[in-house]
Amino acid sequence: MAPAGQKKGILERLDAGEVVIGDGGFVFALEKRGYVQAGPWTPEAAAEHPEAVRQLHREFLRAGANVMQTFTFYASDDKLENRGNKQRFTGQQINEAACDLAREVANEGDALVAGGVSQTPSYLSCKSEDEVKAIFMKQIEVFVKKNVDFLIAEYFEHVEEAEWAVQVLKTTGKPVAASLCIGPDGDLNRVSPGDCAVRLVNAGAHIVGINCHFDPETCLKTVKLMMEGVKKAGLKAHFMIQPLAYHTPDCGCQGFIDLPEFPFSLEPRILTRWDMQKYAREAYNAGIRYIGGCCGFEPYHTRALAEELAPEKGFLPAGSEKHGNWGSSLALHTKPWVRARARRDYWETLKPASGRPMCPSMSTPDSWGVTKGHADLMQQKEATSQEQLKALFDKAAHSH
Amino acid sequence: MAPAGQKKGILERLDAGEVVIGDGGFVFALEKRGYVQAGPWTPEAAAEHPEAVRQLHREFLRAGANVMQTFTFYASDDKLENRGNKQRFTGQQINEAACDLAREVANEGDALVAGGVSQTPSYLSCKSEDEVKAIFMKQIEVFVKKNVDFLIAEYFEHVEEAEWAVQVLKTTGKPVAASLCIGPDGDLNRVSPGDCAVRLVNAGAHIVGINCHFDPETCLKTVKLMMEGVKKAGLKAHFMIQPLAYHTPDCGCQGFIDLPEFPFSLEPRILTRWDMQKYAREAYNAGIRYIGGCCGFEPYHTRALAEELAPEKGFLPAGSEKHGNWGSSLALHTKPWVRARARRDYWETLKPASGRPMCPSMSTPDSWGVTKGHADLMQQKEATSQEQLKALFDKAAHSH
Amino acid sequence: MAPAGQKKGILERLDAGEVVIGDGGFVFALEKRGYVQAGPWTPEAAAEHPEAVRQLHREFLRAGANVMQTFTFYASDDKLENRGNKQRFTGQQINEAACDLAREVANEGDALVAGGVSQTPSYLSCKSEDEVKAIFMKQIEVFVKKNVDFLIAEYFEHVEEAEWAVQVLKTTGKPVAASLCIGPDGDLNRVSPGDCAVRLVNAGAHIVGINCHFDPETCLKTVKLMMEGVKKAGLKAHFMIQPLAYHTPDCGCQGFIDLPEFPFSLEPRILTRWDMQKYAREAYNAGIRYIGGCCGFEPYHTRALAEELAPEKGFLPAGSEKHGNWGSSLALHTKPWVRARARRDYWETLKPASGRPMCPSMSTPDSWGVTKGHADLMQQKEATSQEQLKALFDKAAHSH
Amino acid sequence: MAPAGQKKGILERLDAGEVVIGDGGFVFALEKRGYVQAGPWTPEAAAEHPEAVRQLHREFLRAGANVMQTFTFYASDDKLENRGNKQRFTGQQINEAACDLAREVANEGDALVAGGVSQTPSYLSCKSEDEVKAIFMKQIEVFVKKNVDFLIAEYFEHVEEAEWAVQVLKTTGKPVAASLCIGPDGDLNRVSPGDCAVRLVNAGAHIVGINCHFDPETCLKTVKLMMEGVKKAGLKAHFMIQPLAYHTPDCGCQGFIDLPEFPFSLEPRILTRWDMQKYAREAYNAGIRYIGGCCGFEPYHTRALAEELAPEKGFLPAGSEKHGNWGSSLALHTKPWVRARARRDYWETLKPASGRPMCPSMSTPDSWGVTKGHADLMQQKEATSQEQLKALFDKAAHSH
Repeated sequence: MAPAGQKKGILERLDAGEVVIGDGGFVFALEKRGYVQAGPWTPEAAAEHPEAVRQLHREFLRAGANVMQTFTFYASDDKLENRGNKQRFTGQQINEAACDLAREVANEGDALVAGGVSQTPSYLSCKSEDEVKAIFMKQIEVFVKKNVDFLIAEYFEHVEEAEWAVQVLKTTGKPVAASLCIGPDGDLNRVSPGDCAVRLVNAGAHIVGINCHFDPETCLKTVKLMMEGVKKAGLKAHFMIQPLAYHTPDCGCQGFIDLPEFPFSLEPRILTRWDMQKYAREAYNAGIRYIGGCCGFEPYHTRALAEELAPEKGFLPAGSEKHGNWGSSLALHTKPWVRARARRDYWETLKPASGRPMCPSMSTPDSWGVTKGHADLMQQKEATSQEQLKALFDKAAHSH
Repeated sequence: MAPAGQKKGILERLDAGEVVIGDGGFVFALEKRGYVQAGPWTPEAAAEHPEAVRQLHREFLRAGANVMQTFTFYASDDKLENRGNKQRFTGQQINEAACDLAREVANEGDALVAGGVSQTPSYLSCKSEDEVKAIFMKQIEVFVKKNVDFLIAEYFEHVEEAEWAVQVLKTTGKPVAASLCIGPDGDLNRVSPGDCAVRLVNAGAHIVGINCHFDPETCLKTVKLMMEGVKKAGLKAHFMIQPLAYHTPDCGCQGFIDLPEFPFSLEPRILTRWDMQKYAREAYNAGIRYIGGCCGFEPYHTRALAEELAPEKGFLPAGSEKHGNWGSSLALHTKPWVRARARRDYWETLKPASGRPMCPSMSTPDSWGVTKGHADLMQQKEATSQEQLKALFDKAAHSH
Repeated sequence: MAPAGQKKGILERLDAGEVVIGDGGFVFALEKRGYVQAGPWTPEAAAEHPEAVRQLHREFLRAGANVMQTFTFYASDDKLENRGNKQRFTGQQINEAACDLAREVANEGDALVAGGVSQTPSYLSCKSEDEVKAIFMKQIEVFVKKNVDFLIAEYFEHVEEAEWAVQVLKTTGKPVAASLCIGPDGDLNRVSPGDCAVRLVNAGAHIVGINCHFDPETCLKTVKLMMEGVKKAGLKAHFMIQPLAYHTPDCGCQGFIDLPEFPFSLEPRILTRWDMQKYAREAYNAGIRYIGGCCGFEPYHTRALAEELAPEKGFLPAGSEKHGNWGSSLALHTKPWVRARARRDYWETLKPASGRPMCPSMSTPDSWGVTKGHADLMQQKEATSQEQLKALFDKAAHSH
Repeated sequence: MAPAGQKKGILERLDAGEVVIGDGGFVFALEKRGYVQAGPWTPEAAAEHPEAVRQLHREFLRAGANVMQTFTFYASDDKLENRGNKQRFTGQQINEAACDLAREVANEGDALVAGGVSQTPSYLSCKSEDEVKAIFMKQIEVFVKKNVDFLIAEYFEHVEEAEWAVQVLKTTGKPVAASLCIGPDGDLNRVSPGDCAVRLVNAGAHIVGINCHFDPETCLKTVKLMMEGVKKAGLKAHFMIQPLAYHTPDCGCQGFIDLPEFPFSLEPRILTRWDMQKYAREAYNAGIRYIGGCCGFEPYHTRALAEELAPEKGFLPAGSEKHGNWGSSLALHTKPWVRARARRDYWETLKPASGRPMCPSMSTPDSWGVTKGHADLMQQKEATSQEQLKALFDKAAHSH
């Protein structure tokens, strides 16, 4: 297999109209495998348990991923420090280990290495542009040293911070992607997806899009709004999408974080491989060419993307040797009614049951601050009416 | 860590009243990771992709499993032959590789190696007792050579075949467990769970129980019936339970195979870690001491069993370093309404939504042969009435 | 129309194999119309608002009912007394008014008048057989005076009390039906449905069966058990069924009373007319010939029974002039996709959505006394483990 | 009771800030009682079965309705003619009978009589403004002759036709209300609710609002948009709302007509009385003062509106003599766990189960024309990819 230097770069691929399959969500997958703690979500496993991280990289590669994102989520020094004296590795050790693992596996196939930065606590605590940018600058040192193939500024809730990140990443000379974790209503300052995309392109991003926080359907809707915005502004860009592998028809503007099931009871919402094929096709039809996943994606989800788009790519991923087309491997099952499931329209139209008759199909997102204050006020006003109502009923009862 | 020879054996542990945590389901987990084909479910990955199998063993060990079952499901020569000329490894190579991997990882912790045999096509095609026993005999050669710590006859739908298996396994002198994949209605010949258990104990099994095909609640109900049967017969045995990690309140006597979602759309049914803690506690309270899992179990499910029963065992599994008690790791989350989820009663009482409002909560199991014939007959009879009814309506319409 | 005296009696009809359609549930229907109070459920409306009761009788008659049950539920003096000084009518006035209304409307068509008695508070408070029988004796005075066509002892949870009722009703010389409100697990003393039926037949009932408390499917199962019991005992009887119009797959042995939705939020459970046709056909196929309804039945539900069994009866009910066969009246709708619904298989296979994505599909019945005590005990035992578990986690957290 | 002439008129009430409770849906309620045919929905029952129509009027009056709408839906001659030679009554007979019944019952209490016109087939078949207006003109002749108290132009999907209707109704000199059956997306020509409202006010309507087609929540959202539009235009009007009694979170722009359950399997969607109290309170809080119901409303639904707003009105409706405040009548139930339900927060927070575990909670609206064509096209394009995909899998299978 050719060394990365000889592979086509991310922009060469996208410029040529090729489909690029992204990898899946590391923190959620590794939490379930026992190597990441939910809440802190820090990636010390790269140094602590490299074999586990390497194995997951391999599975995504085998599933058809063309990108190995370094497992460096929440790996900035300030984030890692939160965990106090328990830490056995320095931030630099972790980040370098993550880059090495990604490169090692990328070299086993046709994949590129992407280094990523995410939103910072500093921005949220209102630090200055210079201070925030200094953090990004420090983070990319390792990526430059380890010579990743391109950079991603991902998981931003405020477009302003993402712009700053893009401006810093641009200084490396590497291709830059920028991906927000927002929905169709826009970022947390209500900047619309179209405007967000325009600002990111103007800041220098080659690829813009959406990751995390919402299900494929919602993310797709948001990327389409980005595409419209960029087109209307007379600009050009490539587009990417890396949604959750959880159905979230019921979440508010902050996405799945606000769902009562986050993060420990999301199981009933996990997408099937068939949901994934539908998503891949719709993303492709919308003109998106960088199509991957985020939290909840397991290797078989990524494989489903690569399989659905195999006609466009011209080949199946390696992992498909253990998979048939639309359940065709069931054709040899001993029971005839299971064999009858070996066909596309069966799986495509099946409405899978939850097996949980005591559970609802949608939740009410947790409410917060402003909304709650308003609700209390309403309830108070209503309470008066209800007391009056009770009095009327009592009076009526005695008057008979 | 002490070599296996110096570890306490399975019967020593159970006789002492210790809790033994079983590992999880290999074929389903490895299918999702890209190494096993759904349908054939054969385990060539042990020879083809040993690093993937080793990694999964390690995750279950880290999750607290005290047993490493050799990944030899459907690895008998006749099963493997079905796959034709594609096979790059002999059955012996696969079985030996699987034993070596299980032993390697078991030696990294306090785990025993168990070799397993399952129901055979030969029995279903009505071969003689001698022929069926010859198959089991051939299968255990590798287990004896590789000196596994004990043997399991598991996944039997007919108690008669399981008895034959037990009789063969007994010849090795190793402890023998026997586990059926039946529900409360009994085996496919309608032998009750109580009678099944008595027959298995009489055949020589030290441990009897249930695995696969049904959810924890249903399996628990069935093992309880087994316990009653054994007690009523004046016998003694240890009991084991290794259910699915899928909710199956709606399946018939053949279990989840008959659910329309099997095997590619079971996602909405996956148990949460909290479901698992409930199951572990109820199994323990019922007097079962060998408590594990089957298809659908991921490492975090097994960890939940080990955590729930940590007070009884006296320690937490290694993997709990990345997990808090009842979501306590959320206590440091930035959003106060997520922090509020860091408590037991929140997760214990939450009814998780499916995020699938177009889907039902229960399915109708696929019907088959006899039933269907009957249904057709009924429908025919009814059709006559419906035609007559239509005639009456037409007549009424014209008479006005 | 012939006066009642010249109509065929209830036993003549059943002996001839005719289908008898029962009427629907008065207390629930009149509660929704504004004339009955939920909880007390007393029938003073017969005297207070006779036009409302008469209208409901007429609608059931028009729907095809062959029986007009006098609206005398909970009309015994002791029940009525509970309501204190609010009462504007004596029990006798109410009971007589109810008989007159039933007779008036029955005479407008081919219907018989049935007078009914139900379980008494006296039995529950352990009064003697003589005392309880005295109450029934007093209740039937009006029925005898008003010369109803037959008598029904219905809504009994204990077969013993029902036997006493039958013995009293038999003294009138009129045909006697006996109907329990129990499920397949038997009466509240766990006497099986089969044994209950045998005792009622031996007490002198001509017709035995089930009413109220459970949905058609469950009631059907129970009546089938009654039929088996009677057959096995070498006895003969006619059978009746008058279930709820609410789906109750999730209720315990006391039926829908224990569902959290009783009585004010049962709406999502209401059966469609198509559910009713299915029920009517299955009841008929099981050999039951007296087929009606109880709480929740509206006139269109009863009409669906009469329509489904019109081929057997040979004619449609009067109300069918405003109804087509399986939605055929939609064939003239302006929108083509609504016209496409004018066919049997559409309605028969439709799985109607609840429009309530925040709601579950099944409930947990309210628990009571004994069970709850047991649950508390279990919880206490478990709490200890959970405290120990927390201690282990805390210890682990500090040891890192 | 005072004759209608001496009652306060509709505008006097609304100008004084009084709450006006509308009545419920006649065609759906009478269909279930056996007097109206679904599909044609014509009101010949006013002449054919006056006692049934009178009784329903009385129940709504007793429930607290301040308006008796004449039961004249789809009673124009051209609509009635569709039913061919079956018709035993002329249109004039039906319309006059309906007016007489409404007046008779209105005079029994504090209710006004409203005559109504609805959208016409003529408009849909592109007849001229003059032709459509001529139809409305003919319809109001009876209303003028029978001297109804005010007029309602309701159930319009196109604001243009509603404007024409308002212009005709204005010629009578009576107060005019105009109510569209649209959702938040506007009328079928995509005129926004705000613009619709402005046009109707400019056409001369004193009261504008929404009826039918959507659930209370959706209708409320739409009326709020109307209020904003009217306010922004510097105009003034009274507002009315008469929604369905069915939950419709899943319907498209044509409302419940397009739901697969329309009209014969809507049962699981029926609102509870508690849903109705919530709706009444929210409508009141939004500033709407004419609050009623449409299809699906039964008398107890209307009573719930009147009860919730009793503090504002100062008295309970007559029907509340048979109803307690928030289930208080259960306080005397024999079972303690049912007594525990006699409180507001129990019913207000209960999530009622459907009892239908095989059914979803939301449906996909039936698609139509344009959309379907587009979907077919997409499917065709996709089919090509799928064939190519199958070829790739087949090739892969043979190459091993």
